[in-house]
Amino acid sequence: MTSIAQSIAKYAPILKWAPRYNRAAFADDFLAAVIVTIMLIPQSLAYALIAGLPPEAGLYASMAPLVLYTIFGTSTALAVGPVAVISLMTAATVGDFAARGTAEYGTVALALAFLVGLILLTLGVLRLGFLANFLSHPIISGFITASGVLIAASQLKHILGVDAGGDNLVEIGMSLAAHLPATHWPTCFIGVGVIAFLFWTRSNLKPLLAAFGLSDRTAALFARAAPLLAIIATIILVSVFGLDAAGVSIVGKTPRGLPAIALPDFDWTLWRALIGPALLIAVIGYVESVSVAQTLAARRRERIDLDQELIALGASNVAAGVAGGFPVTGGFARSVVNFDAGARTPAAGAFTAIGIAVAAMFFTPLLFNLPKATLAATIIVAVLSLIDIDAIRRTYAYSKADFFAMATTILGVFGFGVEAGVMAGVILSIILLIHRASRPHSAVVGQVPGTEHFRNILRHDVITSPRVVSVRIDGDLFFANARFIEDRLTAMAPEGSSVRHVVLMCSAINSIDSSALDALNAANRRLRENGVLLHLTEVKGPVMDALKRSAFLSELSGEVYLSQFEAMNALDPERFFQNGAAISRTQPAS
Amino acid sequence: MTSIAQSIAKYAPILKWAPRYNRAAFADDFLAAVIVTIMLIPQSLAYALIAGLPPEAGLYASMAPLVLYTIFGTSTALAVGPVAVISLMTAATVGDFAARGTAEYGTVALALAFLVGLILLTLGVLRLGFLANFLSHPIISGFITASGVLIAASQLKHILGVDAGGDNLVEIGMSLAAHLPATHWPTCFIGVGVIAFLFWTRSNLKPLLAAFGLSDRTAALFARAAPLLAIIATIILVSVFGLDAAGVSIVGKTPRGLPAIALPDFDWTLWRALIGPALLIAVIGYVESVSVAQTLAARRRERIDLDQELIALGASNVAAGVAGGFPVTGGFARSVVNFDAGARTPAAGAFTAIGIAVAAMFFTPLLFNLPKATLAATIIVAVLSLIDIDAIRRTYAYSKADFFAMATTILGVFGFGVEAGVMAGVILSIILLIHRASRPHSAVVGQVPGTEHFRNILRHDVITSPRVVSVRIDGDLFFANARFIEDRLTAMAPEGSSVRHVVLMCSAINSIDSSALDALNAANRRLRENGVLLHLTEVKGPVMDALKRSAFLSELSGEVYLSQFEAMNALDPERFFQNGAAISRTQPAS
Repeated sequence: MTSIAQSIAKYAPILKWAPRYNRAAFADDFLAAVIVTIMLIPQSLAYALIAGLPPEAGLYASMAPLVLYTIFGTSTALAVGPVAVISLMTAATVGDFAARGTAEYGTVALALAFLVGLILLTLGVLRLGFLANFLSHPIISGFITASGVLIAASQLKHILGVDAGGDNLVEIGMSLAAHLPATHWPTCFIGVGVIAFLFWTRSNLKPLLAAFGLSDRTAALFARAAPLLAIIATIILVSVFGLDAAGVSIVGKTPRGLPAIALPDFDWTLWRALIGPALLIAVIGYVESVSVAQTLAARRRERIDLDQELIALGASNVAAGVAGGFPVTGGFARSVVNFDAGARTPAAGAFTAIGIAVAAMFFTPLLFNLPKATLAATIIVAVLSLIDIDAIRRTYAYSKADFFAMATTILGVFGFGVEAGVMAGVILSIILLIHRASRPHSAVVGQVPGTEHFRNILRHDVITSPRVVSVRIDGDLFFANARFIEDRLTAMAPEGSSVRHVVLMCSAINSIDSSALDALNAANRRLRENGVLLHLTEVKGPVMDALKRSAFLSELSGEVYLSQFEAMNALDPERFFQNGAAISRTQPAS
Repeated sequence: MTSIAQSIAKYAPILKWAPRYNRAAFADDFLAAVIVTIMLIPQSLAYALIAGLPPEAGLYASMAPLVLYTIFGTSTALAVGPVAVISLMTAATVGDFAARGTAEYGTVALALAFLVGLILLTLGVLRLGFLANFLSHPIISGFITASGVLIAASQLKHILGVDAGGDNLVEIGMSLAAHLPATHWPTCFIGVGVIAFLFWTRSNLKPLLAAFGLSDRTAALFARAAPLLAIIATIILVSVFGLDAAGVSIVGKTPRGLPAIALPDFDWTLWRALIGPALLIAVIGYVESVSVAQTLAARRRERIDLDQELIALGASNVAAGVAGGFPVTGGFARSVVNFDAGARTPAAGAFTAIGIAVAAMFFTPLLFNLPKATLAATIIVAVLSLIDIDAIRRTYAYSKADFFAMATTILGVFGFGVEAGVMAGVILSIILLIHRASRPHSAVVGQVPGTEHFRNILRHDVITSPRVVSVRIDGDLFFANARFIEDRLTAMAPEGSSVRHVVLMCSAINSIDSSALDALNAANRRLRENGVLLHLTEVKGPVMDALKRSAFLSELSGEVYLSQFEAMNALDPERFFQNGAAISRTQPAS
């Protein structure tokens, strides 16, 4: 292979597995694709509704992106496409730039998907996947729970058949309450009926099918088709009884065929305004997708390439942007179905795309009489599984700080929308991080009698000296704790004390940044002005190399000792030497 | 003292030192105040020019705030008032809401000062001073250097006597170049003359005065009055030769008397828009002021109360907002003069305020013929001392990451203005922090023969086992490294290896947050699915207490051992026991 081919292969894992692709794998992938297609059709329509787009956009978002993931993805089970949370974020973002139902709204959604794709590709090529680490688990968990509640609440208007609105939970609740008297009862009957049916199938359809002789796995997969059954049943209901004339809101005319392929309009002002939201969607979509992929990969002892997943999701979103879709990512429910149905390679995704394409080409006219209440009902039932009250309880029990960040995220989403909520959570966790880092764990240490060990004087019965004090700081020295370092070191020798030497034990310090270096310099200067010398001990190699590049060592009033014992021994031999001498050659210093 | 009185006293240090105030302290403070007043008058006028405000605003900003700092401050030498960098930030912020020279511009500046004050007071009462730790030294240093350049560049138009503009360095440069042919030569003559004079006094006036028999300290203080000399000389020049008629731009009519005291208009939309910039000004002003105060306090072995300084600066800015000023903070040059002139208590500040008030009541008509070029020249000479090329060089040599953050800040200020520059620097340093934290230092460890110590297998000649592997992670486990932890632990037992036990040595871990706990749970689950047990050793007390509040310990496949040696001994006694047994009771484990 030439090196160019190698670099292409590096970014396209399909070149590795496709040559080994065989009939057996095809059979498995094909079956999985059929099952996922059946599940994905109602989901695609429903998530388009959440995103504020016409139903066909949901189908389009489930075609091209899947093919691209097949080429670039590293998970054998991940199924990409529109998902609830990302669709909600899409609606929140696009709604700021265009009104629902306008052609402009669709255009902005395409640009958003394209931009999300470009951002993910850039992060992948620059190997910046670590940016996802900004989102702590409590924030993600809180965000998903809150989004689930918000989505369910936003769909209630379709169940009630009223024209309510609102961008946050308070507005939605007040609008629904105001519109409650206008409830359209036939619509409500369909919506509540579908919700009840779907809940019933969750716990009862699988045992029923198993009682009819189906295997457990087959029964479980069939039970997943319940939303499609509900769609078919309510379409028939509307058609037979002419319920649309009675005021039941239906999907109406949906174009037949495949989407046009076109680059989104390049509008610099719009793109610049979309960058922030697109980055948030990209990172949240990536975190969600990778979590799903890793969970499933672990079950088969496979590995996911985290940077390559950025490329794959990026390519999928670019494809969504040029082929009539909206932002997509790996979905949990459909990936699990794909996995359980036996998908063996990413090819299953491409076959699913073909299945959706067939549906788009031939079956969209059948969707004309589909009540929006049916889609809303499938959404409500689906997103309720996103709500994880137990995670909130567990976080509260484990860490009040994490719970605080989680609660901020949830209340932020409820009160101000998805973007504000997640940003508030991220900013708060960074503030809490800096707060914690600004007071690192530190201990004044003394010698454990008869050893060369130096331990916390508060926890151990140790030897100390009135002339020499030593402090150990447990953690890297950097800008957040620079002020703490300066204060801690200078406070070791208060006015009027007999202390003449302050020893900083650096055994737990892996790096010292410029701010901390300034702090050490300042402490050194302040101590020296008061006639106190500053010494360092047990400085690690890389830290010492860095210090040598500065003027610190030449300005240091004291010495740098290899070991803590050596330093204390040299600075107050009467006190430390006789005790440590006995074993001073038999073991390395702590 | 009643408890109410005590809480008041807590927030008003003046109640502690005022009762002991005596004639000797008064004499020293008074002399210092006279000298600082002489220095402060030209500075106040000049910084008002930077802020885009009329000269009297500079005088007003040097009155009420000083009185408030006297009541609430803890530094005996700090002199608050308008400073260059904060004035520049004020101009950048206010310029977004109102046009220079309009009454609205002054109103917005007042609201900004008031808001800066409220933010500082809030941070002080809530003891949130640690927020200043977000600003690393390279960012502050880069920001000040870049601001110095930007201020100097923005004043060149006054020296050239042209009507140039621009919000960033590129725009300013291009505008100046375009206006260069229109240079007004009499103005330019004054401006360049004053610059040359001020530079000359810097190196020559002090020796000259010393040669006339003045003491070194007195000569240095007199040399500080050079800007006032330049002001007087150029006012006379303009008055005698009628240069204003010849087109030299002058200060013009300046109101005589004291400012009106009034609360700023409360305009919610404006205030909300100002919160971001106000927070930035508050934090930068605080960091600057506290650095100056700490430097001077250290020389006298005094201590600054960091939270009380937030209160004091907050009160000073609120005073600026209600008494005709703009945002203020502690200034370096004037504080050093105050210190060198012998100020002994914060009362010196109040006396300075009286001095400025006298000037505002009686001498403002004399400023009518003051050329703007003179003020611009004093600014240029003053801010050039802010430019610290050596700090850039030192940072580059010491840490490329810090230099990167510094360069981003500098280029951000040059290209996009002060706020964008400092925000870019802060965001970048947080990204670099998360990047570093996402890959904490970790080491696979083995037993040092004949001891109970376990050390890095890459650096020491140690005993290992094919069945039991142990890894030590050096640092707290939290959201930024959660993914790393999961990967690191599961990768210890790759498919097909003989490893049956993975031991996580927790000796350097001071905390585990919810995200890291999830990662440990995931690693435990993934290892267990592959028949590998996970064990912990040397878990610190507080960490263990937290883990007990979760389900982790009950789900952990392996055990929690008190010491690393105990664990390895129990899991592979054949390999580790005989070696460590000899000394296993004679010393504590590492």
